[in-house]
Amino acid sequence: MIRVLVWWLVTMMAVHSASAEVKEYTWEVEYKFWWPDCKESIVMAINGKFPGPTIEADAGDNVTIHVVNKLSTEGVVIHWHGIHQKGTPWADGAAGVTQCPINPGETFTYSFIVDKPGTYFYHGHYGMQRSAGLYGMMIVKSPNERLKYDEEFSLLLSDWWHQSIHAQELALSSAPMRWIGEPQSLLINGRGQFNCSQAAYLTNGNNQCTFKENDQCAPHTLRVEPNKVYRLRIASTTALVSLNLAIDEHELEVVEADGNYVTPFNVSDIDIYSGDTYSVLLRTNGSISGKYWISVGVRGRKPNTAQALTMLNYVKSPETDRPANHPPATPQWDDFVRSKSFTDKIFAVEGTLSPPEKSDIQLILLNTQNKIGNYTKWAINNVSLTVPVTPYLGSIKYGLKTAEHLKSPAKMFTMDNYDIMKPPANPNTIKGSGIYSLASGKVVDVILQNANVLNKIDSEIHPWHLHGHDFWVLGYGDGKFKPGVDENTYNLKNPPLRNTVVLYPYGWTALRFVTDNPGVWFFHCHIEPHLHMGMGVLFAEAVDQIDKSKIPHEAFGCGLTREWLIKQARP
Amino acid sequence: MIRVLVWWLVTMMAVHSASAEVKEYTWEVEYKFWWPDCKESIVMAINGKFPGPTIEADAGDNVTIHVVNKLSTEGVVIHWHGIHQKGTPWADGAAGVTQCPINPGETFTYSFIVDKPGTYFYHGHYGMQRSAGLYGMMIVKSPNERLKYDEEFSLLLSDWWHQSIHAQELALSSAPMRWIGEPQSLLINGRGQFNCSQAAYLTNGNNQCTFKENDQCAPHTLRVEPNKVYRLRIASTTALVSLNLAIDEHELEVVEADGNYVTPFNVSDIDIYSGDTYSVLLRTNGSISGKYWISVGVRGRKPNTAQALTMLNYVKSPETDRPANHPPATPQWDDFVRSKSFTDKIFAVEGTLSPPEKSDIQLILLNTQNKIGNYTKWAINNVSLTVPVTPYLGSIKYGLKTAEHLKSPAKMFTMDNYDIMKPPANPNTIKGSGIYSLASGKVVDVILQNANVLNKIDSEIHPWHLHGHDFWVLGYGDGKFKPGVDENTYNLKNPPLRNTVVLYPYGWTALRFVTDNPGVWFFHCHIEPHLHMGMGVLFAEAVDQIDKSKIPHEAFGCGLTREWLIKQARP
Repeated sequence: MIRVLVWWLVTMMAVHSASAEVKEYTWEVEYKFWWPDCKESIVMAINGKFPGPTIEADAGDNVTIHVVNKLSTEGVVIHWHGIHQKGTPWADGAAGVTQCPINPGETFTYSFIVDKPGTYFYHGHYGMQRSAGLYGMMIVKSPNERLKYDEEFSLLLSDWWHQSIHAQELALSSAPMRWIGEPQSLLINGRGQFNCSQAAYLTNGNNQCTFKENDQCAPHTLRVEPNKVYRLRIASTTALVSLNLAIDEHELEVVEADGNYVTPFNVSDIDIYSGDTYSVLLRTNGSISGKYWISVGVRGRKPNTAQALTMLNYVKSPETDRPANHPPATPQWDDFVRSKSFTDKIFAVEGTLSPPEKSDIQLILLNTQNKIGNYTKWAINNVSLTVPVTPYLGSIKYGLKTAEHLKSPAKMFTMDNYDIMKPPANPNTIKGSGIYSLASGKVVDVILQNANVLNKIDSEIHPWHLHGHDFWVLGYGDGKFKPGVDENTYNLKNPPLRNTVVLYPYGWTALRFVTDNPGVWFFHCHIEPHLHMGMGVLFAEAVDQIDKSKIPHEAFGCGLTREWLIKQARP
Repeated sequence: MIRVLVWWLVTMMAVHSASAEVKEYTWEVEYKFWWPDCKESIVMAINGKFPGPTIEADAGDNVTIHVVNKLSTEGVVIHWHGIHQKGTPWADGAAGVTQCPINPGETFTYSFIVDKPGTYFYHGHYGMQRSAGLYGMMIVKSPNERLKYDEEFSLLLSDWWHQSIHAQELALSSAPMRWIGEPQSLLINGRGQFNCSQAAYLTNGNNQCTFKENDQCAPHTLRVEPNKVYRLRIASTTALVSLNLAIDEHELEVVEADGNYVTPFNVSDIDIYSGDTYSVLLRTNGSISGKYWISVGVRGRKPNTAQALTMLNYVKSPETDRPANHPPATPQWDDFVRSKSFTDKIFAVEGTLSPPEKSDIQLILLNTQNKIGNYTKWAINNVSLTVPVTPYLGSIKYGLKTAEHLKSPAKMFTMDNYDIMKPPANPNTIKGSGIYSLASGKVVDVILQNANVLNKIDSEIHPWHLHGHDFWVLGYGDGKFKPGVDENTYNLKNPPLRNTVVLYPYGWTALRFVTDNPGVWFFHCHIEPHLHMGMGVLFAEAVDQIDKSKIPHEAFGCGLTREWLIKQARP
C-alpha cells in the first residue's frame, strides 16, 4: 500500500520538479479599519489589504512567506489549509500544535512545497483570528492542467460579525456561555452589504445599495465573454455558517474538491461548508449583454443573514443595467436530503488512488456538547480540547514529557450506552489536549458521530478538517454508526479525496487515511466557535520518523519549549 | 553624596527588616464582562475582579506575585508603580524594557522588596492594557507610621471608555490618527455611572441613578464616625485626564505624595494627575448623621465627562437620606494658576533627604507633537519612542548589540531655534528607542519642556513618571527654560520627592535624581495614548553594575533574546 502511495506522489511531483520555483513574500499582519460590509469594522489585514493577497504558484514550487507580526500585543500564526506539509510539519501554522504564536514585532518564516495543483486558502489559526479576517486564497496551478477552460475567477466566501473577535471569544468562554449569534453579513472576496441589498429594486425594497468608487464593500463583478468556459475557484473560510452558491440561469460543473479532481457533475447550485474548496466550470451562453445575479446564502442553520450577491456581467452589458431576474433563492436551510444528494454526487475522478481495502485502526469520535462547571464546551469522546500552551511538535523536538500530552481520549465511545438522539444524560466533560498517537504506515479509519446538543432537541452540522492529509470519504449515514455493519456500506471504489468533510445532524461520516506524513496534525471542526469551545483532536503521527533536526528552533520559545531553551542557556 | 543616600536608605529599611515577611499571591489575568459605569464593557480582571486586589504589605516585606496569563492571544505584564526595584530591575514590569510580555498560558513571577511605606498602585504596562482596567492599589504600611489617624480608605481613580483598547490603539496608530476623545466615565474604585447621576435629585435632572444590590457600578460609600481622623489614600491611574477631588464641607490635609511624606498643608480640594498618589487626612466633624458628596472631576483638559461621585456617610445617617448639598464643583479646567498654586504647596517633610547641590548631567527634553508620514506622533528631542521588541535589560544580560539600542536622542534641543509657543515649523520626527545611558553615581537633572501642539494653538498637560526612582522636584516655570538662569530658581532646600510630576502647558519642570539604582528605567508621560504615540525615553542607568546573573532568563524569550536562547541550544 505504502509503496503504491509513494509511487503516486513521486509521479505527481516529478511532472513539475524541473521547473520548480521559489515564491517568496513578506507579509505584515496588522489590524486596520475596514468596511467589509459597508459598515466600519476592524479587520486583520495583510500588507494593508483585506482579504490577504492571493498566492499563485505551480505544483512543486516552494512557497516561502515571512510573516511579520505588526500587532500590538497579540501573537499570530497562519495555517496553509489543504497543504500537506510533507517534511515540513513545523510549517503547518497551527498555534500550540506545530509552533508557538509569532510574538509582536517578530518574524517567522514558513517555507513549504505545494505538491498538488488545486484550490486552497490560508487563514489565522490562533484564538479566533480567522474570524477577524486573517485569510486569503492560495491557487496552485499545473502546466499540465487536465481541465479545459478559458479563464478563471476566485470566490473566497466568509461570514462577518460586527462584534470584535475579542468580545466573541470572551462571550463563548464566559459562564454562562453567550452565543455569538448569526453573522451580520456574508462576504464574497471580503465584500458584503449590511443593511442594504443590491437587488432591492426587484422587491420594491427601499434599501437599495449604492456604492461610491473604491468602496471597500462594493462587489467585484465577474466580467465574462459569451460561449467561453470559466473556472470558478470557490473556498469557504466562514467562521460559522454553511453556504450555497448559485448563478442565475447557469449550471455549474463540479470538477475539483479540496485540491482533488472529482468526476465532473452538473448542478444548479453547490453547497460549501467551512473549510471546503471547489472548482466549478461555468459555461457562458451566447448572450453578449446578459447580467445575472450570483447569490451566496446560508444553509445548515436557520439563517438570519442576507444573501451575499455579486453579478455575472457579459462583456457588452450596459454599465447601468441591472439583472432582470431575481437572485437565485438559496435552498431551504434544513433540507438535508438535498444537502446529502449533493455530497453523494462527489466521486474521485478516474485514476485517483483508491483507498486500502482494510483499516488497521478505527476511531469512533462522538461529538457532544457538554459542561465543565458552568462553562459550555464541545467534546470528543468526552474530552474537550484545550489547545496546549506548549506546541506538541516542540515537545517532540525537545523530548518534553508533560501530563497534558499524555492524556488520550478513548478510541471510541461506549456505543451501547449513548443515545445520540437525546441531550446528553451526563453532560460533564473534562479538558484535555486530545492527542491520539498513530504509528507510521497504518490505515486509519475515523468515524465522526454526531449527536444531539445540550439543551434542546437539535443536532448541528460540523465540517471537519484534517491538517497534513487528504482522506478518502468512505461514506455517510444516518443515526448511530453500527460497527461491523456500516463498514459494509463504504465506497472503496471511487471515494473522493478531501481535507474537509461534513458531518450531518444525527449522522455519521467515515473517512480513511494512511499515516504516511510524520507530524502532529490538527483534526477539528472548522466552525471557529466550535473549535474554540473544544471540538477537535490532535493526531501525533509517526513521530518517531520526524527528523527533529529539521524542525527549526524558531518555531518555539513559549511554554515548556521556552523553559527548555532557557535551561540550555544556564551555565 | 552617595554615602549619605546609602546611609539614609539603610536606616529606612533597617527599621523593618526584623519583621519582614513574604507576601505571596497568584494572580490570573483575563478579560471579563463587567459593568464599571453601569454599561456593560470588557475589563481586564485579576482573579475575576475589577479593579485587581489591593496589595497590603509592610515596608521591608518581599512581595511575590505569580502572574498567570489567562488571556487568549495577548501578552501581559504588570508594573509596580512607585516601587524602586533596587536589585530587581527585571521585576519592574515594563514590556520591551525590563522583560518580555508573559505569553498566554505562561506564568511569570515578580519578586521584590517594598522598601518604603506609602501609597502605590500597580498596572498593566503593555499596549494600552492599563486603560483596559488592569490595575489595583498597593499599600505599604509601617509599624512606625508617623501619621496619626484612626482608619483609612483607598480611592483608586480612573477614566473609562466604552471603546475597546484594541480599537483605541488602532485609532491612535492609524493614518490619519483618530483621537479617542474624552472618557465616557470617571471611576472611583472601579465604579462610575454613565448616563445617570447620583445627584440628579438636586438638579431636577431626570437621570437619577438607581442601583440594585451587587451592581458593579454602585458606589462604595465611605462610612465614618464623628470626630475621627481618616487617611484617604488616593491614586490616579487615568489613561488621559487630570482630576480634582473634593469632599463637601471637609478640608483635606495633604500628608503624602507618591510614597513620600510632605509638609502637611490644608486644601479644600486636590489636583491629581495620572500616576500621582496622595494621602490626605480627613477630620470628621461632630455630626453623627451627615451625608456629603465626594466629587471627582476633570481638570487640565476641557471636560466632557461627568463627575464621579460617592458619599461620605456618617455612621448614623439614615440609609435612605441623600446629601442636602450639591456635590463640590470641580474648579475651572483651565485655571492653571490655581493648579500651580496647589503644586507650589508641596514640600518635603522635614528630615527628608535633600538633593545634591549640583548636577553632573543636564537633559533638556522638549516634547513635541510631530508627524512620521501621515502618522501623528509625540517625540522627545525629535525622537518618537518605539518600545523595543527586545527588552533592553535582556540585551544587557546577553550582551546583544543592536542598532535600535544605540540611538540616543540629543541631550537637549537647540534652544535658540525652537519657538515653543507655535506649532512646530518642521513637524517631522524619527522613530527610536530613546535610550540615554547614565553612569553610576551621577546627579542628573531633567528639564521637561512643554510646547505647542501640532495643528492648533494649544499646549497640553503631561504628567511624567519615572520608574526605579523618586526624584526631587526642583521647580516649575512658564515659557522656555533658560539654561544658566532658571537653575537659580530651583528649590534645593525642601523639594518634594516624587515619582510623577506634572508639566504644565507651555512651561517647564525641573527634577533631579541620583543614578544609584542600576537598571533600565522607563521615563514617560503617564497619559496612555501619549506614551502609545511615542512620548517617553529610557534611562540605561549604571548598567555596568547590574548583576546580570541575577536577572532571570525567565524574563526573556522574545525578539533577539529569543534568538540568543535558540543560539545556545544549537549543537
